[in-house]
Amino acid sequence: MYRSHNCGELTSKNISNEVILSGWVQKIRNKGFIIWIDLRDRFGITQIIFDQKRSSKKIIEKAQKIGREYVIKINGEVIKRESINPKMKTGEIEVLVKDFTVLNSSLLPPFTIQDNSDGGEELRLKYRYLDIRRNPIKNNLILRSKITAEIRSFLSDNDFIEVETPYLIKSTPEGARDFIVPSRMNPGNFYALPQSPQTFKQLLMVGGIDKYFQIVKCFRDEDLRADRQPEFSQIDCEMSFVKRDDVIKQFENLIYNLLYKFKGIKIDKIPILTYEKCIRLYGSDKPDIRFGMKLNYLNELAKNKGFEPFDSNESIIGICVPNGSNFSRKKIDQFTNWVKRPEIAANGLIWIKYNEDGSIKSSIDKYFNYNELIKWIDFCEGKKGDLLLILAGDKSNTNLKMGLLRMEIAERLELRDPEKYSPLWVIDFPLFMWDEEEKCLKSMHHPFTAPIEKHLDLLNTDPTKVIANSYDLVINGNEIGGGSIRINSSDLQKRIFSLLGFSEEEAINQFGFLIDSFKYGAPPHGGIALGLDRLVAIIGGQEIIRDFIAFPKNNSGKDLMIKSPSKISSDQLNELQLRINPLKS
Amino acid sequence: MYRSHNCGELTSKNISNEVILSGWVQKIRNKGFIIWIDLRDRFGITQIIFDQKRSSKKIIEKAQKIGREYVIKINGEVIKRESINPKMKTGEIEVLVKDFTVLNSSLLPPFTIQDNSDGGEELRLKYRYLDIRRNPIKNNLILRSKITAEIRSFLSDNDFIEVETPYLIKSTPEGARDFIVPSRMNPGNFYALPQSPQTFKQLLMVGGIDKYFQIVKCFRDEDLRADRQPEFSQIDCEMSFVKRDDVIKQFENLIYNLLYKFKGIKIDKIPILTYEKCIRLYGSDKPDIRFGMKLNYLNELAKNKGFEPFDSNESIIGICVPNGSNFSRKKIDQFTNWVKRPEIAANGLIWIKYNEDGSIKSSIDKYFNYNELIKWIDFCEGKKGDLLLILAGDKSNTNLKMGLLRMEIAERLELRDPEKYSPLWVIDFPLFMWDEEEKCLKSMHHPFTAPIEKHLDLLNTDPTKVIANSYDLVINGNEIGGGSIRINSSDLQKRIFSLLGFSEEEAINQFGFLIDSFKYGAPPHGGIALGLDRLVAIIGGQEIIRDFIAFPKNNSGKDLMIKSPSKISSDQLNELQLRINPLKS
Repeated sequence: MYRSHNCGELTSKNISNEVILSGWVQKIRNKGFIIWIDLRDRFGITQIIFDQKRSSKKIIEKAQKIGREYVIKINGEVIKRESINPKMKTGEIEVLVKDFTVLNSSLLPPFTIQDNSDGGEELRLKYRYLDIRRNPIKNNLILRSKITAEIRSFLSDNDFIEVETPYLIKSTPEGARDFIVPSRMNPGNFYALPQSPQTFKQLLMVGGIDKYFQIVKCFRDEDLRADRQPEFSQIDCEMSFVKRDDVIKQFENLIYNLLYKFKGIKIDKIPILTYEKCIRLYGSDKPDIRFGMKLNYLNELAKNKGFEPFDSNESIIGICVPNGSNFSRKKIDQFTNWVKRPEIAANGLIWIKYNEDGSIKSSIDKYFNYNELIKWIDFCEGKKGDLLLILAGDKSNTNLKMGLLRMEIAERLELRDPEKYSPLWVIDFPLFMWDEEEKCLKSMHHPFTAPIEKHLDLLNTDPTKVIANSYDLVINGNEIGGGSIRINSSDLQKRIFSLLGFSEEEAINQFGFLIDSFKYGAPPHGGIALGLDRLVAIIGGQEIIRDFIAFPKNNSGKDLMIKSPSKISSDQLNELQLRINPLKS
Repeated sequence: MYRSHNCGELTSKNISNEVILSGWVQKIRNKGFIIWIDLRDRFGITQIIFDQKRSSKKIIEKAQKIGREYVIKINGEVIKRESINPKMKTGEIEVLVKDFTVLNSSLLPPFTIQDNSDGGEELRLKYRYLDIRRNPIKNNLILRSKITAEIRSFLSDNDFIEVETPYLIKSTPEGARDFIVPSRMNPGNFYALPQSPQTFKQLLMVGGIDKYFQIVKCFRDEDLRADRQPEFSQIDCEMSFVKRDDVIKQFENLIYNLLYKFKGIKIDKIPILTYEKCIRLYGSDKPDIRFGMKLNYLNELAKNKGFEPFDSNESIIGICVPNGSNFSRKKIDQFTNWVKRPEIAANGLIWIKYNEDGSIKSSIDKYFNYNELIKWIDFCEGKKGDLLLILAGDKSNTNLKMGLLRMEIAERLELRDPEKYSPLWVIDFPLFMWDEEEKCLKSMHHPFTAPIEKHLDLLNTDPTKVIANSYDLVINGNEIGGGSIRINSSDLQKRIFSLLGFSEEEAINQFGFLIDSFKYGAPPHGGIALGLDRLVAIIGGQEIIRDFIAFPKNNSGKDLMIKSPSKISSDQLNELQLRINPLKS
């Protein structure tokens, strides 16, 4: 037997018990004749003591050779500690070692197994099995396990059935790029890994499953932006005989439940904003509404007053930074430089300080008088002590630029309180967007999203105006998930594919099975998919998903630990009837 | 709103309630002035009635156009049925339709949506979304969902953490064949899909996770035998600081729990047999022990008596078929032909009938007298009325042939009672088997399995004699899972790879990360993996896994519904820097 107890459970109730413990050596304090070791396992730390007076001398000698991260098994007696540590559950006791065995030795780890490790990102990924020993990562994985268990239990209690959909499916070139899998049994043919189980969950609704869920891996072969993974986990759900509000209500309850169970926070009804309003008020379709700084449109007040930068631009937008009037010139210059970066590419930033004493100082003092500027501040609902920042530019993107500045300021002013949770539903997205490059319509979400009923005719006359029957769930500025009521008519589905530029043959070839299924009594249905990685990270009070994934890949899609992807043998390629065909450069 | 209730819940308590129901039209009985429809959803069936006297005439006219599998929404009043159906939960009531809407029409389905469908296998796979509407398949999927929920809850209650391991991993050519995934970001390099998360779960143990589980898809690119799938689901577990008996006890509890919850069966402690004993007694390493017919070795009694077929063969093995003495000559000939098939390739089958009246009739009457044959029957623990069947052949395989005959007889005599559950642990497998073709050792399970401690020295002298610290779980003749205590020493792991014919470079290249991890304090650990598909099928009282998988593939690895695998575009291949390279034939 390796243990009678784990390293996190012995208390003063166990004093004078004989126990067996196994674990890792976290810390050694060696006074020669007496040695204390912090013995660690997943459950906690127990202090063990080797004492020349009370243990045998042979044991002490053997114990001298123990190093950090050795795995040892000890047996001994639980005794009262001399110096009690009230912060630890096991802090009142220690175990006087009678005998022990080294179960495995350890080289010196390449970084410290501490909450604040000295390991850099690359090193930690290479030795991920050591990184997982650290409390922050270990606790993230435990939290993830608990959250998924809670989600499953909630959905099961609400009559959802978990159904596993296949991983070896079919490549459909539109949308993101598929990972493909060559078929040896059908040479020259390929499976694809699912970007999501979208069509399968719809088929389950056609099959009468009524309420489906699955926590499932999805795959996208995209150039990885920071904090994206080529494989990610999705809470995938679909319901039959529902309208938009039914889905919203169901998943509002889920979010309520999770925030209450894991954070002790009771949220109110989740507000619903239209896409149009989000863009207008926050310059983003996934606004962080934990703080204000809404966008204000100053065209009427500020244009045609002879200030060229305003007169020559389509859109003049201001936000009030609370308590920003005391910003130094340097700090304001930093924001100005920030908006001038190529990623934002604004021409400049106008600032107006509304000082505590009621005076005004601004970068456009020469062009506008006090009364004018006060009107602007009033219009933007500014108060004494605030700072009004203004961008001018094209109508099509100045709001988005201001949205980004708003987030940047909030980040710097620490307005994004990690203990506050402000979920939001965003609805009424356009069904399509116009792709200027390819001169064609693209689905805003995906081609299975239903238009709202009253816009069915608009599909024929002005498709870019058609509103989708969709909804996104945003928490604290992160898009956590999205969904929609789906098309369940084969004719409408074909019409959408045709609007998206599919020939009838292409549509049938790629999605014929779904279109066909709609001819056999497809019920009205809709669903949602939530990003598990990000949801867990947010509940964990963080926004970086990598530390909530056991074995993540780096930004080049590489697993640094197992050194993957890697070459395969020519035998394997031959069996698949494939050849590597390097690009000529 | 689509429904106030589902189709499985209205009872006489609801009489005179106004309700809204939505569902599929299962059955129509149309008397012209009165129409009954069985309305079906996932939850059940409710009879609805359109009655010219009590509904409007317009409604009746509209209702005439409803066809099978139409999706309709109705509202009406719950009334008492005239002819009560006590077998249905909703059998006391019907709903008098006041108004209805056709939510979707349906073509005539290609097979009937009935428990006993008229659809063949291929048709059912092509229209799987319709097949899922049938109770047998739907209930299988619901059972699967409930079993997985129960497994998760059991393991969580036992301190296991569910951790998701990656799907894009690294190809390791030994063992079964990998599915590979070309990496676009790293051209010429490939990921592989996991055959199991074996190395990752071991790394989680090195990482201190202590108890891990995951219900996870695994992939094997094998030529598919009947009832195998290229992707399958595994209940994957690993524990630290355990010995064999700890793992066995933990998962014995799981099986106990599942059989009790889903079948109401309380099993006794699961028997443990050694591999050697299984082969000897049952001619199989996964014996069905629901019935007897053990193998008996007749060499001493039957050899060297002048009967050439016995004298010239190494091994003479008999089994007693209970109540087989009344088998017709034709039936016995069928068994003789069965063992002569190329798959078994026995020379012939000797039979001895021990009749109820005490007389004996046999195919070897001329060579052996009554007293001799009675001795054999006694030795085989036969009774009056039994039939003794004997095979003679090589020592290396006659027991296996007899094991197959034993199963075939049990199948035909219906001794394999689907309501009986006889789990069994098989232990003490050899660590290696000798591959005669490749002239090298192969792992019986996989190269990470630890040998039993007292055989460590034997590795150097006679590796084929080394017993593995492993265990298989067998239920009713099906291998449900297997596992082992793992190697946690980098030296021993390297030694095993070397015995398996890996060069040091190959071992490091493929498994260096695991060997390295063992140098940093790897705890003793072991685990198990259970096949979910088969476990669910067995609990469902069946042995065919396909009907417990929502979207299975056929024996050529094809999904007949989505028509996958399929061609991909040359753009996709170019991006991956791959070319199709057909074999010259």
